[in-house]
Amino acid sequence: MVVVMEMSSSNQQIEAVNLKLDQLGFQTQMIRGVKRIVIGAVGDRRSSDILELQLMPGVEKIVPIMKPYKLVSREGRDENTVIKVGNVTIGGDNLAIIAGPCAVESRQQLLTAAYQVKRAGGQIIRGGAFKPRTSPYSFQGLELEGLKILKEAAQATGLPVVTEVIDEGSLQMALDYVDMVQVGARNMQNFRLLKAVGQTDIPVLLKRGMSATIEEWLMAAEYIISEGNGRVILCERGIRTFETATRNTLDLSAVPLVKRLSHLPVIVDPSHGTGDRGLVQPMSMAAIAAGADGLILEMHPEPAKALSDGPQSLTPEELEQVMGQLSLLLPAVARQLPTNAIRESA
Amino acid sequence: MVVVMEMSSSNQQIEAVNLKLDQLGFQTQMIRGVKRIVIGAVGDRRSSDILELQLMPGVEKIVPIMKPYKLVSREGRDENTVIKVGNVTIGGDNLAIIAGPCAVESRQQLLTAAYQVKRAGGQIIRGGAFKPRTSPYSFQGLELEGLKILKEAAQATGLPVVTEVIDEGSLQMALDYVDMVQVGARNMQNFRLLKAVGQTDIPVLLKRGMSATIEEWLMAAEYIISEGNGRVILCERGIRTFETATRNTLDLSAVPLVKRLSHLPVIVDPSHGTGDRGLVQPMSMAAIAAGADGLILEMHPEPAKALSDGPQSLTPEELEQVMGQLSLLLPAVARQLPTNAIRESA
Amino acid sequence: MVVVMEMSSSNQQIEAVNLKLDQLGFQTQMIRGVKRIVIGAVGDRRSSDILELQLMPGVEKIVPIMKPYKLVSREGRDENTVIKVGNVTIGGDNLAIIAGPCAVESRQQLLTAAYQVKRAGGQIIRGGAFKPRTSPYSFQGLELEGLKILKEAAQATGLPVVTEVIDEGSLQMALDYVDMVQVGARNMQNFRLLKAVGQTDIPVLLKRGMSATIEEWLMAAEYIISEGNGRVILCERGIRTFETATRNTLDLSAVPLVKRLSHLPVIVDPSHGTGDRGLVQPMSMAAIAAGADGLILEMHPEPAKALSDGPQSLTPEELEQVMGQLSLLLPAVARQLPTNAIRESA
Amino acid sequence: MVVVMEMSSSNQQIEAVNLKLDQLGFQTQMIRGVKRIVIGAVGDRRSSDILELQLMPGVEKIVPIMKPYKLVSREGRDENTVIKVGNVTIGGDNLAIIAGPCAVESRQQLLTAAYQVKRAGGQIIRGGAFKPRTSPYSFQGLELEGLKILKEAAQATGLPVVTEVIDEGSLQMALDYVDMVQVGARNMQNFRLLKAVGQTDIPVLLKRGMSATIEEWLMAAEYIISEGNGRVILCERGIRTFETATRNTLDLSAVPLVKRLSHLPVIVDPSHGTGDRGLVQPMSMAAIAAGADGLILEMHPEPAKALSDGPQSLTPEELEQVMGQLSLLLPAVARQLPTNAIRESA
Repeated sequence: MVVVMEMSSSNQQIEAVNLKLDQLGFQTQMIRGVKRIVIGAVGDRRSSDILELQLMPGVEKIVPIMKPYKLVSREGRDENTVIKVGNVTIGGDNLAIIAGPCAVESRQQLLTAAYQVKRAGGQIIRGGAFKPRTSPYSFQGLELEGLKILKEAAQATGLPVVTEVIDEGSLQMALDYVDMVQVGARNMQNFRLLKAVGQTDIPVLLKRGMSATIEEWLMAAEYIISEGNGRVILCERGIRTFETATRNTLDLSAVPLVKRLSHLPVIVDPSHGTGDRGLVQPMSMAAIAAGADGLILEMHPEPAKALSDGPQSLTPEELEQVMGQLSLLLPAVARQLPTNAIRESA
Repeated sequence: MVVVMEMSSSNQQIEAVNLKLDQLGFQTQMIRGVKRIVIGAVGDRRSSDILELQLMPGVEKIVPIMKPYKLVSREGRDENTVIKVGNVTIGGDNLAIIAGPCAVESRQQLLTAAYQVKRAGGQIIRGGAFKPRTSPYSFQGLELEGLKILKEAAQATGLPVVTEVIDEGSLQMALDYVDMVQVGARNMQNFRLLKAVGQTDIPVLLKRGMSATIEEWLMAAEYIISEGNGRVILCERGIRTFETATRNTLDLSAVPLVKRLSHLPVIVDPSHGTGDRGLVQPMSMAAIAAGADGLILEMHPEPAKALSDGPQSLTPEELEQVMGQLSLLLPAVARQLPTNAIRESA
Repeated sequence: MVVVMEMSSSNQQIEAVNLKLDQLGFQTQMIRGVKRIVIGAVGDRRSSDILELQLMPGVEKIVPIMKPYKLVSREGRDENTVIKVGNVTIGGDNLAIIAGPCAVESRQQLLTAAYQVKRAGGQIIRGGAFKPRTSPYSFQGLELEGLKILKEAAQATGLPVVTEVIDEGSLQMALDYVDMVQVGARNMQNFRLLKAVGQTDIPVLLKRGMSATIEEWLMAAEYIISEGNGRVILCERGIRTFETATRNTLDLSAVPLVKRLSHLPVIVDPSHGTGDRGLVQPMSMAAIAAGADGLILEMHPEPAKALSDGPQSLTPEELEQVMGQLSLLLPAVARQLPTNAIRESA
Repeated sequence: MVVVMEMSSSNQQIEAVNLKLDQLGFQTQMIRGVKRIVIGAVGDRRSSDILELQLMPGVEKIVPIMKPYKLVSREGRDENTVIKVGNVTIGGDNLAIIAGPCAVESRQQLLTAAYQVKRAGGQIIRGGAFKPRTSPYSFQGLELEGLKILKEAAQATGLPVVTEVIDEGSLQMALDYVDMVQVGARNMQNFRLLKAVGQTDIPVLLKRGMSATIEEWLMAAEYIISEGNGRVILCERGIRTFETATRNTLDLSAVPLVKRLSHLPVIVDPSHGTGDRGLVQPMSMAAIAAGADGLILEMHPEPAKALSDGPQSLTPEELEQVMGQLSLLLPAVARQLPTNAIRESA
């Protein structure tokens, strides 16, 4: 890191900072500018060191040079991480398409949806059993019953299933029923939950927080991996900005940027990212063209009757259209969809 | 609510929407504009109704008229809610000043700080036992040991204490040791936690989420109150914007606005709100001038040695200066500080 | 529009609002809810009416129903507007690729760049003669000399040219030398300039302001068209958000959304939108996949020597790669590039 | 500045960067970390140097150390700048209160308002003759006629007047009629206009752009001062954030922060900053408590009839109340209002 001293700092103050850096185990080098002294410090910083230095008299600011994450970083690992969810791979040549309703509402609704997803060429089924809802008066999910329905759908269709977990209790319950768990945007910095999923070995779909920087998002993945579970898939789902014409602003530049910074796979959620059914198809195309490893899409057998997020849910027919469009895109991105996907949706 | 039909909607579509509104128990009235039909619908909406309507053919958009919250609303309750924490009142004539270190680091550190807070005229002591930290490699809190130290400080000084809880486990532990619990910005939409604190009767300091709208913040309070615990104090602590010169952008206009919309007390956290020790005093003054019911301030006996958030912590001397300045402000806002506060800090 | 009365509004207040709406020429209809009166008002609102109503005693809020723009709206015009710039069409089947350096630095630099753009398959040449720069100490452009160089490049290559204008003086100068003028993001609400370009008949590339909503952007286009010049091409170039890992956040969902709301063509600037050369190719692909009518790309013969925006400029070789990639995308979006473009970059 | 080399950079690349820094006149020093080389470079950087370096092979990033502004910086000038507008001082012990309608609508409206401002204790009269409006269909200002009315009001009341200028033409016209010109938020980066006002010697009220960082705002002031006009007063007027409950988010922490970074005076506009008449008084109090040198307030003789911005305009009675409240705040901030202000509003 680099310590910038104030223009008016005294020799004693500079000396004191140097001494402190020595004590903390840094090797230092002084750069004397025309107006200002800058001290380069080489070593393995911990954040508490920085705090201490930042408050020493004469110090103007500390400029960190190294990234704060290690395990998720591309610097430590050149090749892309490929994660297996059931028999589906995410992060390799395959485009992973996850689809299904926002919430599990009934056995019939979910099983119908699951077959529709399979028919359209989707590879993983989504459905929420625990729903974090802004209003206490909204539908909150079927919980255990929902998990059982998800498992039945997985067995019936042969496709793996993913569901959101919202605390340690729901995580423990979900482990017996699903093939991947999702940490939602609102829980991206629920560090207890991150640690808990880090202590399992189930694949984790980690959504970006609504106002999380890319660095914070990667740090959240670092939390999980540092506990021992390296099976993390990142999911861009839109950030909160001043623009209200869409529910969120889908930040697709995050896709190639995260792939540069990290070896982890990245998928995109254009349903939550836009909140607008009419924008899901073009943004699905855009996400894949930007280099995403897959998509997670909301599809409901009857969107008009959905208990949550109906306005952003595709109909089964629309999902087939999206899959058909995506298949035309494959040559441009050197990716594949499973043969049945392309055949069935063609 | 108001249903706006598309310019091109057919008579059948309009009829169908009318019928659906009837079935949902709304009384409707049609407004025929030059280009467009608008349907006014009177009744008690639930969000699922809106979803269903929004997806009917011919519907352009739904405009809700009523606010989504009830229990927190000023409309239901004219007078200000005053909440008692130990022997301190928040929300009345008294300005409630909460101060102390970000984290409980040791028995000696916290006890020293507690006496310094009391000496400066602070009325409630803060200290974190469970720390949600962005990096898994940062100090995470003393947990149970920290809670015991907080209780000792309360008994020694006679001042009540507040600490942050981060899940149901930490909440259950904290109930035996502290006088108020804090739900942090990152957990403002951790709905499990909101329900859990709603099922206790301990006062709750509810921080605004980093990217939460005022409506979402009030809905989070509604979650707590709808479970039975009406002792909620709101805390503005800065929102995330494009400006990086301060750690957050302290949204002081939220103070008078929330007081117009809700009967709950509102305090301000200028320490996290700015992340910059030099800005804490002017923003403390500004917060009180804007009508806040109190402040929560970080103060550390030796900020340069703090294990977290040192750069925004006041020294004990600076806290006394802030209190002295605040006492000059009291006539302008028709508020009081306890006599000892004014005397000791003068 | 809809006038929502306060819960506590009196009969006289309601009567007064009704009377005022009558006087303003609105037809009104009252909707009596359980708790509240809402008045539907049919007619052609002007914004001053709204102001007046909003301040009448008893009025809680006014909810406008109609969009504030007319000439740019899809509602008034079903088919897409196709605009001709020289012999290039924007908005139809053709993908319009505009490329060139940020600034015209010298005759040799621009002519070299122009031939490179042509060779790669670009159809329009860009180059700034008037540079709005954040620092007064930065290079500000060659002005008239730059315009002459642009015209020479157009004649030499046979490709049309576009340059940014920053006030009425630069606009008048540019009209004699270029085929399209650009209104930059910082001037999107420079209403004098909008009117001035509206009084010419040259095609106008209207960039979205850094913090402009889609509605404000369309209103800026409305300014130009209401003065008589309908040849407006919208350009998404990234918005300002809390994320600092990229220079701006490229809002690609704006592309399909604007195409739904308006009949005007929309292109995308991934160079400014990301500020990062390594992200230009994936975001170019994503923009076209999202439905954009074209791209504007920064390309410099020697980016390392660029006087402005070097870090986001492609090399000529990289531009050829982008064009080659785009040609693989054409079947998926049912668009074309001119034959020479595809052949030369293949 | 500091040049951070990539982990994988070769010796030749490092050598090349060193050589280039030498050629550019920098003195360099190499800091060899465990994983990475960092080069400290001492000298006077120009932005084009940075661009060139950033693109050299092996360079990961450039970290600038010095602030990009000089003339506005507190580093170059310890004491506060005090600016005289007519016989009113801004930036010293006096709190400068500017008030008046958003737009000059008629001779009678403005003269009435001017006397009301004087009666309430205001010191400078505001009124817009050139109105930048989002919609081409809104009232655009009386222009020259408005300037004449402003001058008449100044002569009648003895108070100086300020008006917004929007281009070089309006600036030239305004110079003969007003005592201070305002550069509005939308023109904060209209660099032509900044230069033009920099070439006059009239005081300039420079509003912060809706999405301008504090650094960009100070750079805009630097533009004006670098042309020779040092009489710049900064005005915080709210930034654009995700929060829509207020028209803008008033960033009051900008006040003490700008006073730390710069010697220029700073005032606050709570009318535009909130867009809500009911929030103007509390935010006026907060602004002064935060250390602002004054306020600019919208007041209209009959807000309900205002042709623009009525909902945020105070009535004359409300302005007197604000002045009365402010007078109670003076002891806390060690400021003064002119005696007549206090007496008249008491």
